[in-house]
Amino acid sequence: MGDLFLFGQNNSFCRVMKNPNPSVGDRALPHVRALDAYVPGKQPRDLGWIKLNTNENPYPPSPVVEEVICKSAGEALKTYPDPISAALREQLAGFFGLPGSEWVFVGNGSDEVLNLLVRTFSDRNRPVGYMAPSYSLYPVLQKMQNAAKAELRYTRAMGLPIPAIARCGANIFFLTSPNAPTGVGISTGSVEALLNRFGGVLVVDEAYAAFAEEDAIGLLARYDNLCITRTFSKSHSLAGMRIGFLLGNPGFVELLDKVRDSYNVNILSQLAGLAALSDDGYYRDLAQKIKRTRDRHFEALQGRGWFTYPSQANFLFTEPTDSKGNTGPLVAQSLYDFLYRKKILVRYFGNDPLTDSFLRISIGSEKEMEIISEAFDQWQNSA
Amino acid sequence: MGDLFLFGQNNSFCRVMKNPNPSVGDRALPHVRALDAYVPGKQPRDLGWIKLNTNENPYPPSPVVEEVICKSAGEALKTYPDPISAALREQLAGFFGLPGSEWVFVGNGSDEVLNLLVRTFSDRNRPVGYMAPSYSLYPVLQKMQNAAKAELRYTRAMGLPIPAIARCGANIFFLTSPNAPTGVGISTGSVEALLNRFGGVLVVDEAYAAFAEEDAIGLLARYDNLCITRTFSKSHSLAGMRIGFLLGNPGFVELLDKVRDSYNVNILSQLAGLAALSDDGYYRDLAQKIKRTRDRHFEALQGRGWFTYPSQANFLFTEPTDSKGNTGPLVAQSLYDFLYRKKILVRYFGNDPLTDSFLRISIGSEKEMEIISEAFDQWQNSA
Repeated sequence: MGDLFLFGQNNSFCRVMKNPNPSVGDRALPHVRALDAYVPGKQPRDLGWIKLNTNENPYPPSPVVEEVICKSAGEALKTYPDPISAALREQLAGFFGLPGSEWVFVGNGSDEVLNLLVRTFSDRNRPVGYMAPSYSLYPVLQKMQNAAKAELRYTRAMGLPIPAIARCGANIFFLTSPNAPTGVGISTGSVEALLNRFGGVLVVDEAYAAFAEEDAIGLLARYDNLCITRTFSKSHSLAGMRIGFLLGNPGFVELLDKVRDSYNVNILSQLAGLAALSDDGYYRDLAQKIKRTRDRHFEALQGRGWFTYPSQANFLFTEPTDSKGNTGPLVAQSLYDFLYRKKILVRYFGNDPLTDSFLRISIGSEKEMEIISEAFDQWQNSA
Repeated sequence: MGDLFLFGQNNSFCRVMKNPNPSVGDRALPHVRALDAYVPGKQPRDLGWIKLNTNENPYPPSPVVEEVICKSAGEALKTYPDPISAALREQLAGFFGLPGSEWVFVGNGSDEVLNLLVRTFSDRNRPVGYMAPSYSLYPVLQKMQNAAKAELRYTRAMGLPIPAIARCGANIFFLTSPNAPTGVGISTGSVEALLNRFGGVLVVDEAYAAFAEEDAIGLLARYDNLCITRTFSKSHSLAGMRIGFLLGNPGFVELLDKVRDSYNVNILSQLAGLAALSDDGYYRDLAQKIKRTRDRHFEALQGRGWFTYPSQANFLFTEPTDSKGNTGPLVAQSLYDFLYRKKILVRYFGNDPLTDSFLRISIGSEKEMEIISEAFDQWQNSA
């Protein structure tokens, strides 16, 4: 923000202001001013990258989605979207065997749903709880809300510390299952054991459920304090369309409807979600294909001697070992850099001792995974 | 929320719960529980309605928009959108003659931008200020944030009470110009006079600027506490795509980037915005056409003897007079109902003595406006 104002096309801007915006910063809430924005994975726009860093689906969405979007890309856009995404809520309720659409909330990506949950259930006296490492957005949302936090830590074994969560005092607790960035699934039994001891709101963030062995949906009918968030981004190849949703009893849905923007989900996203749901077979096949690729590469990484968590998601979290048998942050960073030079993007979380010797690799297409495997070979031979 | 759980398709839901969600409501923040959600104008999905209730553009978006969307409706959707909408920010900066994209913030509709502004600049000690009547979302956002408010009232003359605003103590003040639901424009001179006396953040909400005689953009370079919000919804026939933006110095943009969702604007909305900007001539013509229709119908309403505010927006705010010469809430409601029975939707704001004898009529196509004029004739003859 240094040399602004110097080169404006408009004459009125062609002057230097020493301190361009004292009043804006001073007027903002102190906790907002102090925020660091969440840093999402890189989204390079130039060609030639192999993108295995943000857990996108390597395969295109169902052709039905494209068809439906093109059909509505003209005059239909001039009107506001259905403010309650009624058709999509209805379809999702049916899809998951819920009593009705009053059990479903749709958001502009599940990030919006998580944000609204934090806004509804937390403040300085009502802590936001979450495990670390897990989805790095939770602490960002907690700080955004200026809420208290109850951060609990996994150990390297990645077992769920149920008693610690039960007594952590969180008013709302986020549990990512399968977890990111590890890929470790949490059994329905463990979720239920937690619900039997934890009285706050439990949000099971099931962004990766399509690639998992279990999910918590069967528990919704029995635990009023449970809700589940999902997304079309990964399983349905629609990260670009921002469609996330919550499944939970009508108490949740009613509250979130009060704090969301009236027209939070645009027309084409509502239609894309409906179209995707209508082609379930296509997406089941995709998930199977991705799981097969994942499992094969899990074994290959183990074959290299790299410690890798068994994954129930569409990524692998692996601890690379260099040719001298070393592991650690420098080794992981070295592999990250090596891959980056080859235009292969993966994700490195260097800020936590439980993650800083690992890389997270999204499951790409067969071809992409072959290329990264070869790059691993080259790196191991060179490092 | 009474008889839920009774008819679930899934066996686990087939039981009656007397009080389905005590814990959820109890866990929510008291001010959220107490909220009434913003009530947007009706969006009927059945055919045959003439929709003059939500200020949408009666004409379709530029054909370039459809073309661009269809081209990207397939595989492109599998990746996340550009998190900072860089290309669209850049184009908007150029379009408005601003120094660079660091002067532009893009949101999921301008509603999201307004929401984020409230979240950044208000709390219990930092009031949200706004005029009443104006955009009815502001008090909803203020309550959502549990912030203090400074609500000032227009009189029937609709002059801007500059000294009252200057001393109202708001940390952030929303000024809709042209105002809704009246359509009355606020001169740039008045905005500047206000800026010379008001030290808080001034948001000029220019949702309807494309139909106005003036705007406040020329003031941005000189007043650091000024920002302007705009939308593609009305002027660019893209209400369904949710594209709003803020123009203001980098201090604003930097703060809003901290509190927004990372991927707040989806891929197709970013592309649609860019495409729309590229066909400026098309939209200038639309705005001209709408203004001509508006001005002709303004005169026609005056010809009926109905008091109507001179409008600089794409709607008219008129006080209907029945055949006996009466005006008032009952008269306005009677016309509303009459139109509704003919499947013509307009907007009625019955909760304020300054609006409750008026109807707000969005400017539709020539044909739609002819139909509503004939309906006015019939009503006047029957009422």
